[in-house]
Amino acid sequence: MSLSIKCSGFQAAGVAAGIKNDQALDLGLIYSNQPAVAAGVFTRNKVQAAPVQVTQRHIANGKAQAVIVNSGNANCCTGARGDEDAEQMIRVAAEGLGISPEDVMVASTGVIGAPLPMEKIAAASPELLNSLRPDGFEDLARAIMTTDTVPKLIQRNGQTGGHSFTLTAVAKGAGMIRPDMATMLCFVCTDADIAQPMLKACLGRAVDRSLNCITIDGDTSTNDMVLVLANGTSGAKIVTAEQQDLFQALLDDLLMDVARRLVEDGEGVTKVVDIQVEGALSDDEAKHVADTVAHSPLVKTAFFGEDANWGRIIAAVGRAGVTMDPANVDIFFDDIQMVDQGQGCGSEAEAQATAVLRKPAFKVVIELRQGTGKARMLTSDFSVDYVKINADYRS
Amino acid sequence: MSLSIKCSGFQAAGVAAGIKNDQALDLGLIYSNQPAVAAGVFTRNKVQAAPVQVTQRHIANGKAQAVIVNSGNANCCTGARGDEDAEQMIRVAAEGLGISPEDVMVASTGVIGAPLPMEKIAAASPELLNSLRPDGFEDLARAIMTTDTVPKLIQRNGQTGGHSFTLTAVAKGAGMIRPDMATMLCFVCTDADIAQPMLKACLGRAVDRSLNCITIDGDTSTNDMVLVLANGTSGAKIVTAEQQDLFQALLDDLLMDVARRLVEDGEGVTKVVDIQVEGALSDDEAKHVADTVAHSPLVKTAFFGEDANWGRIIAAVGRAGVTMDPANVDIFFDDIQMVDQGQGCGSEAEAQATAVLRKPAFKVVIELRQGTGKARMLTSDFSVDYVKINADYRS
Repeated sequence: MSLSIKCSGFQAAGVAAGIKNDQALDLGLIYSNQPAVAAGVFTRNKVQAAPVQVTQRHIANGKAQAVIVNSGNANCCTGARGDEDAEQMIRVAAEGLGISPEDVMVASTGVIGAPLPMEKIAAASPELLNSLRPDGFEDLARAIMTTDTVPKLIQRNGQTGGHSFTLTAVAKGAGMIRPDMATMLCFVCTDADIAQPMLKACLGRAVDRSLNCITIDGDTSTNDMVLVLANGTSGAKIVTAEQQDLFQALLDDLLMDVARRLVEDGEGVTKVVDIQVEGALSDDEAKHVADTVAHSPLVKTAFFGEDANWGRIIAAVGRAGVTMDPANVDIFFDDIQMVDQGQGCGSEAEAQATAVLRKPAFKVVIELRQGTGKARMLTSDFSVDYVKINADYRS
Repeated sequence: MSLSIKCSGFQAAGVAAGIKNDQALDLGLIYSNQPAVAAGVFTRNKVQAAPVQVTQRHIANGKAQAVIVNSGNANCCTGARGDEDAEQMIRVAAEGLGISPEDVMVASTGVIGAPLPMEKIAAASPELLNSLRPDGFEDLARAIMTTDTVPKLIQRNGQTGGHSFTLTAVAKGAGMIRPDMATMLCFVCTDADIAQPMLKACLGRAVDRSLNCITIDGDTSTNDMVLVLANGTSGAKIVTAEQQDLFQALLDDLLMDVARRLVEDGEGVTKVVDIQVEGALSDDEAKHVADTVAHSPLVKTAFFGEDANWGRIIAAVGRAGVTMDPANVDIFFDDIQMVDQGQGCGSEAEAQATAVLRKPAFKVVIELRQGTGKARMLTSDFSVDYVKINADYRS
């Protein structure tokens, strides 16, 4: 990460409001100097935090100019007061910036079930507004951290029609593993000039290919939110199919990088494993298999133990509920074939596969020979530290 | 457990054939002095071990007289040789007992992917046959253990028409947590006189209410098998609706006891938690909720940490994909209400709930107020030892 990360026409800030106990940064702001087109993707959990509901209403018109966000408290399961508090956070930002509340989004991350300390947020808001600056993204990245051990700030650059443009992502989340810590927030700022419907379509596709293909423990959050704001100040117009392809590729790559960093920084994670399923009857069936393998506690503890235990993998494939015949299944760890048509490849292959499992990142390829469907999912191991961190979290 | 556990007309045995490395009992036999009616329930995993496939064929006619079973090797993913080995185990038992191979069932439990050491099984078979005796069930229970720390041998008694009858269950399985260790085997012997269709119906219902309502990690096995043999030697006829109700109640209670003991003996388990969902739109939706909560790693690690973290529970309910409104949800730990209409009940309730979580067994009641659907699932916590045991298993 570099302090020089900027995105033209955007400013950001992060300050310590005292919501967290440890004087860490916990209140952040993004501001676009001019109104931006905007799109969002939100948690599908039926228990949705107040800021998720409020922001979905505010983004419905496809426009946004600012985002205010806090860590240390999820503002979830907080009843009518929670809704009022989320709206109040928006008013604080809107009044300070002199813009309409309609154009301000709000996000929260932290513990479920406690009311927001609104007096602390109000008291810190003048400093927050004064701290806005073009290179404020790193402070913002720190202000949204909860159990993250490193801030996540990533940039991609493109060029079209003689104009350079930038996509800047700020994210938090120790993987998908902490729903009560509100899991995953990701804000993307771009100075590209793109129409809202195209932006929304690009975001949907990019999220499906990246953030929806990672798992640490299968729990999904009450507070998940991905927002993208495009203010057009670079002059780079994204209009033609070719320009859209360029923008889509950059956004895919940006969010895939975010996704990988979330898994790498997952609590207790020692291995990042790319599960690749091929030859399924359909992409959907491939996704079921990848999903089942990627969530199996037995498979994930074997990864932690650096044990090339293919029996657990084929047993997980067998319970995924898809068309398959064990006698057609091949399994590889990176390039080492462990299973050939449903049977083990012997002790030499096992020794080579064990060497693969010692690496911090590797892939597991599962070939079903049923059709052409395929899917990928990025997962982690399940470690002793994962259990310790999550058992001790509130104590 | 008592050495006096018998079931009239049945004999059992367990010997050490050397399939396991540690000279433990690893080969078992059940024999009914006369042909019995029989029914079975088998794993739904599409990767099925050879003995599961062979036994399904042999039990198709509704009759059985013997069961031969080994631990230490699952005979799964072993190709054509695996099928031949399972048939050979059956022939060894059939020849020694002087009965038709059609009336012998076979089961295996242990590591996936290695061929059975048939020479050891053949060499030990004379001793196995000689060891058959009415009070041999405890040896049998020990011979089918893998990672179990205690043998599971349970009995229920009933009386009808002036005749006493017995249901005797022998089971193995450290919960559902060890698919590559073939997870769960359960053999029930009864001297009741019951027609096969009624026996089969009773077994299906009892399994749905007991063994299908427990989970430790959601993985299902390639070798799961529940068999019941009824030889009628007690003279107790199960014919009328009233008699069937009695038999069903005893079988339900027997298998629920088996289920609870499997969870209690699950690897690394320190808590047994009874998840009860009430007020769902349907029983099916209630089951989805119970299932999602019971499998959530975050919920299970909180149980291990004795943390009354209701935020994780309501977040799991929210992602179960059922009809629900957070504002209608109540959550109780035993009799302590933690959540009232979607909001926390405060620090006093939390302190009382924490005391509940210190107990080795407790219930979590989730009330959705959508209808009359309900479901229960027995689950465990997710402990540091679970990860250690499963990470180190083959090393």
